[in-house]
Amino acid sequence: VIAQLTVVGLGLLGGSVAKAARSYGLARRIVAVGRSPGGLQAALGDGSVDDVTTDLAEGVARADWVVLATPVATLNTVLTDVWPRLAADATITDVGSAKASIVRTAERLAADRPRAFVGSHPMAGSEQSGYTAARSDLFQGATVVVTPTERSVPDAVKRVTGFWERLGARVTALDPDVHDAHAALVSHLPHLVAYALVDAVGRGDRASLQIAGRGFKDTTRIAAAAPQVWREIFLTNRRALEGALGHFRKALADLEALVARGDADALDRRLAEIKALRDGLP
Amino acid sequence: VIAQLTVVGLGLLGGSVAKAARSYGLARRIVAVGRSPGGLQAALGDGSVDDVTTDLAEGVARADWVVLATPVATLNTVLTDVWPRLAADATITDVGSAKASIVRTAERLAADRPRAFVGSHPMAGSEQSGYTAARSDLFQGATVVVTPTERSVPDAVKRVTGFWERLGARVTALDPDVHDAHAALVSHLPHLVAYALVDAVGRGDRASLQIAGRGFKDTTRIAAAAPQVWREIFLTNRRALEGALGHFRKALADLEALVARGDADALDRRLAEIKALRDGLP
Repeated sequence: VIAQLTVVGLGLLGGSVAKAARSYGLARRIVAVGRSPGGLQAALGDGSVDDVTTDLAEGVARADWVVLATPVATLNTVLTDVWPRLAADATITDVGSAKASIVRTAERLAADRPRAFVGSHPMAGSEQSGYTAARSDLFQGATVVVTPTERSVPDAVKRVTGFWERLGARVTALDPDVHDAHAALVSHLPHLVAYALVDAVGRGDRASLQIAGRGFKDTTRIAAAAPQVWREIFLTNRRALEGALGHFRKALADLEALVARGDADALDRRLAEIKALRDGLP
Repeated sequence: VIAQLTVVGLGLLGGSVAKAARSYGLARRIVAVGRSPGGLQAALGDGSVDDVTTDLAEGVARADWVVLATPVATLNTVLTDVWPRLAADATITDVGSAKASIVRTAERLAADRPRAFVGSHPMAGSEQSGYTAARSDLFQGATVVVTPTERSVPDAVKRVTGFWERLGARVTALDPDVHDAHAALVSHLPHLVAYALVDAVGRGDRASLQIAGRGFKDTTRIAAAAPQVWREIFLTNRRALEGALGHFRKALADLEALVARGDADALDRRLAEIKALRDGLP
């Protein structure tokens, strides 16, 4: 059991970590660090946390477990601020959607001052955000990627893996750069494309939204997500996203060419191959 | 009340028309025309239809209502075959995803032999297909577009509109070409893009599917649809789809440029504008 879990940032993911840790009894004491008094008071009020503070140093000082859940653009700064305050035996992880940059920052900091950091990325987002959307069962059945490297403390990798597993997640370990390439393909690219689909309607004829059915709604649901969250993710994982976009452009151009050529048989085969890949989703 | 409703083609949409018409008591007698004895026997067996036949001429001969629900690539041929068999007072509609071509065919046929045709497009598809997926409540709350022209019989437009309304749908009237442009933007383009998203993963690294979350699943759900259905729709509505693709390419290129430039403020504003459009969905 964790003696003190400190969650920094109490949005959808941080709030859900606090709620889930409380619900599954993972920590004797849970402290939340945040900037918004509203979210902090709500978490105190519903019993998800024992104490709240807006002072980062104070919040992490006595923690043996720290989860950073601030917006992805701030993670490197927050990690750098937190590092000198961490107890020698503390385990620290984050929940950012891009991993190469934060892991590099942690390894640079650890070179001077060894601490046990392992990056995490729970694939459990939602188009909703903020503490009001947080749920204790958010990680149940979700995939969480952890991103250890050869410099990680093996025991910390086990602890971080076990933490997410106890919250109900299926944990996969990936190299940080491999994670970023994978996340770009199956998460960041679909988000950018969903925004582009909605924008295409705006450029074409927005009256067509009047006849939009379930297909359009499902395909573009993630374009209803918070713009700042996704702006930060797109920019933070820019390089891997560009690679994913390259694959997407080729895929779309090939389908377009088959349609333009009117080649029914070749189009059938191509769509069937793609459907088979989609049907194979775990 | 309809004396005899004949449904030609007993897949998801045709089967659902038969089931719904039975369930809401719209027709005294319901006849299904199909090629697959399996689907026909199932509909007879569950009481959705009173009679079945594989003979198109026989199936429509005594009908005062005909709904064509065969694959979109066959609709022009089936309509041409059915036309000379139609009773003088029969009302006929179809459920195809593209409307300009079938409406033109009907107007050409009507010039020689006046019959009351009005095109329909129920926006109630699914990634499922076939009679086993048919449901009597498929049209409840769905949008159905009807596509009358200045040559349509006004009474027939009312009858076809009322038919769908009695099955629970919200009916919108659009010019056939406007319908095709709208459907390309909010239905056919999203389908093509969903296929391209899955294909991009195949070209990138299909191992990334192991970490795909709900965002990827929702965005690409429609890529699990039947390849032949969508090949036919893409090819039939090719011209409007090309127009929609043009808008999409520009939208994606603009977003990409903002990401490449690292312009956080401009990207925030753009994503917020797009989200506002998405949030305004009826």
